[in-house]
Amino acid sequence: MSSITSETDAIEQARKRIASAYDPQLLQSAGREIVDLLVSQLESCQKSAGSVLNWNSPPENIAEATRLLCSGISDVESATPMERIRLLAETMLSRGQNLQDPRYIGHQVPASVPLAGLFDAIGAVTNSVMAVYEMGPWATACENALVEELGKLIGYQAGSFSGFITHGGSLANLTALLTARNVALGKSWKEGLLGTNPQPVIIAHGAAHYCIERSAGILGIGTDRCLKASLDDRGRIDVELLEALIVEVQSKGHPIIAVCASACATPLGAFDPLHEIADLCEKYDLWMHVDAAHGGAACFSDRYRDLISGLERADSMICDAHKMMFVPALCAFVFYKNREHRFDAFQQNAPYLFDPSAPDIIEYDSGLKTIECTKRAAAFGLWGLWSTFGKELFADLVDVTFSMGQILSEKLRAAPDFQVLHKPECNIVVFRYLPEEIAGRKAEQIGEFQLRVRRKLIESGEFYIVPSSFEGIAALRCTVMNPLTTPRHLDQLMDALRKYGRELL
Amino acid sequence: MSSITSETDAIEQARKRIASAYDPQLLQSAGREIVDLLVSQLESCQKSAGSVLNWNSPPENIAEATRLLCSGISDVESATPMERIRLLAETMLSRGQNLQDPRYIGHQVPASVPLAGLFDAIGAVTNSVMAVYEMGPWATACENALVEELGKLIGYQAGSFSGFITHGGSLANLTALLTARNVALGKSWKEGLLGTNPQPVIIAHGAAHYCIERSAGILGIGTDRCLKASLDDRGRIDVELLEALIVEVQSKGHPIIAVCASACATPLGAFDPLHEIADLCEKYDLWMHVDAAHGGAACFSDRYRDLISGLERADSMICDAHKMMFVPALCAFVFYKNREHRFDAFQQNAPYLFDPSAPDIIEYDSGLKTIECTKRAAAFGLWGLWSTFGKELFADLVDVTFSMGQILSEKLRAAPDFQVLHKPECNIVVFRYLPEEIAGRKAEQIGEFQLRVRRKLIESGEFYIVPSSFEGIAALRCTVMNPLTTPRHLDQLMDALRKYGRELL
Repeated sequence: MSSITSETDAIEQARKRIASAYDPQLLQSAGREIVDLLVSQLESCQKSAGSVLNWNSPPENIAEATRLLCSGISDVESATPMERIRLLAETMLSRGQNLQDPRYIGHQVPASVPLAGLFDAIGAVTNSVMAVYEMGPWATACENALVEELGKLIGYQAGSFSGFITHGGSLANLTALLTARNVALGKSWKEGLLGTNPQPVIIAHGAAHYCIERSAGILGIGTDRCLKASLDDRGRIDVELLEALIVEVQSKGHPIIAVCASACATPLGAFDPLHEIADLCEKYDLWMHVDAAHGGAACFSDRYRDLISGLERADSMICDAHKMMFVPALCAFVFYKNREHRFDAFQQNAPYLFDPSAPDIIEYDSGLKTIECTKRAAAFGLWGLWSTFGKELFADLVDVTFSMGQILSEKLRAAPDFQVLHKPECNIVVFRYLPEEIAGRKAEQIGEFQLRVRRKLIESGEFYIVPSSFEGIAALRCTVMNPLTTPRHLDQLMDALRKYGRELL
Repeated sequence: MSSITSETDAIEQARKRIASAYDPQLLQSAGREIVDLLVSQLESCQKSAGSVLNWNSPPENIAEATRLLCSGISDVESATPMERIRLLAETMLSRGQNLQDPRYIGHQVPASVPLAGLFDAIGAVTNSVMAVYEMGPWATACENALVEELGKLIGYQAGSFSGFITHGGSLANLTALLTARNVALGKSWKEGLLGTNPQPVIIAHGAAHYCIERSAGILGIGTDRCLKASLDDRGRIDVELLEALIVEVQSKGHPIIAVCASACATPLGAFDPLHEIADLCEKYDLWMHVDAAHGGAACFSDRYRDLISGLERADSMICDAHKMMFVPALCAFVFYKNREHRFDAFQQNAPYLFDPSAPDIIEYDSGLKTIECTKRAAAFGLWGLWSTFGKELFADLVDVTFSMGQILSEKLRAAPDFQVLHKPECNIVVFRYLPEEIAGRKAEQIGEFQLRVRRKLIESGEFYIVPSSFEGIAALRCTVMNPLTTPRHLDQLMDALRKYGRELL
């Protein structure tokens, strides 16, 4: 046999193995199996039949993931691809964090509407992507439709704003601040920041999400040039002190790239007074940016939309649909009030991407507006959900979970062994468990006790809540991000903290 | 009725509506329906029964996406949620780009292994995310296992390297270059780039992907400071000229943040001589970065791994699993040869995320290493695929598609009315269709003809290929990213180009 023939044979053998991996019948069997497993997992979670967090140490989990990765279908546990797939899927479901359990009251990551994950899966199985319109015509259409409808709900004027979806709030804030930087400092994109003197600054909410300061570090501005605006006693930007800071910075000649407000700020869920900040930005001719990753969805709710009044005056803002619109991660919106800024973040020339024979279509080539070149169809989950249930679903989700923040706060306030550390404005509640034996101790000891109780609680799998810090001392933090969490679960949480606290005393 | 009671009633009503959206039975019915639709779509695509690209203009698609978004289940076409869901899913599948059709021979985005999308869907339906270990213990484990195994295959030394997954090659390159910048210019993270004189530069492959130059723009270095290394006649970095450039830049005192090689470069798929570039980087003490987004997967293939020989000497490199590992977007790896650099991109303090009561776990908190705070479980598709079929599947996929690049090139070379513009090294082939009537015309006319033929071809739905440019004149470009594409399809592609070409003449 000649070497060319054996070469061809080898490729033919490879083609056969590939064909069995691409077999539609395998997709059918595996799809049904996985759907069944997901359904029974969801049922079990909703009934709180298992643990919230399935705790295993990192080395234990990594060893198991590596074993499965390297053992292949020769593994004795699974002789056929379908048996193998079942084993892998069961393992994935049995070792994770169960956000669908109503005792998950943790990070600002929702128990997403399960159906949204299915719409997302249509994109994943077909590998629908964007960058140029041709590659994802329908993904582009869904994204554009959502940008238009959400932008109008936020209060932007139809026809004059622009927006897009990107992979997460950090990237969204980075892109918006890059635009603000390029607008404020004309030549910085091409020439860098080296000749810019006096140094430009960003002014941010004093407890802004860490990604704002990081953006200053990434963009060459420097984290030291991310000045923190002082907060009032409710954790909101103090507008008088903000004005004093602006005046001081401008008097020294430093360009202000942006004033970054929060709606709401991460630590306490405090909403900045956006109209007053917008007034200042207009007065001093400054770019107003709002990180509304969590709170932007209040635009759906008659009950809560006052919290974000003034958001429509922001030059740029971001909102994470994978937070309070209850879709799976990641689906973050960036908006520019003035659509003329939509191409200001980036400039480029990539002839293999952008086709001069169809110049009108460039407007729909997402890659010109986003850091991502290839971008997954991140709009599908939200578009599918909204199109199935209508936007009223998002109002319901905001109303139920925000109201639960109030209820939790009231319960904690009524209990002598708990201390709420702020007046919650939404579904974020920061507190401490302070039984008699602890209440009189030093602040550091009180903080350490919170962390130790929490660790026992979450490793037990009984509830999931997160650590935080208030005035430099550790605290506990809940965000009600599962709409099936009821007041009864909150009572049980408090009892569980008491139980694990007693074990430590 | 008191206002408190009606308030409670309104919340109870909202809870009921939410419960029906979260109903496991709806997930079951919708899941089965969507799996069935995906299977029949896959069968249809594999048989080329429909169009590759379903062409509709952007305004047409956006109008339809908006109509569905705003009409809700009151829509006459769909009275029940399940009818509505079916309508939406069918619409999504009927208006997209069909990468699973073997006549899709377009961008560097694969016809992904359909099963990978199902493993990804487990993450989407359960909303498995990362940032801190607790939130995604199993996602973290899968990512760590993959980083370790892939890093070893690339040739890094076990125990001494580090890596992570991020949302796409552009973000991966940006993060690696941010690390290089912070390492090269000690204070740039905190103090910005303002005091750095003479100006730092990045040296990049002359036809590097646009995201490298963009990174210079984003990072405050400036796109003008992204110097382009000259290429040889095969489109690879010319090492002699590179050395001359390094010497010249260093003699003027400019810090060189990184030398960025490509494996391979986007336009022609040319692989840089990595060992020679590594020798230079060692000689001049420079950070070597390699964009191996497309070619990194050659590490799986005995047949093609020589193309990336020397990759293991790169200080940082990136590789997109959503390219030549055939998983759906986005799943991009970043590697650092020296694990001491793993926290050099970012610094931060976010007490609500990182728990001082468990300091050992910080090593597994992905948010410290990535731009993303909340990150989706982007490892699941690849982990599932690799664990089901073993890593041999990736060797097969590389072997079959790279060999098809050769076959296409030979077919084009043998045809008098086609012109191949380079000697393909992988599955990327750039060419022109040059029938007699066109061959003698001016270069611009020849280029315009390529674009017009392509537009007719892709809007017909018969094949999907992409535009490119070679020596400033438009050309055609194929990347064989569907392993079911056979030599017969390539013959048909050439005939289709002839057919649409004749219509234009």
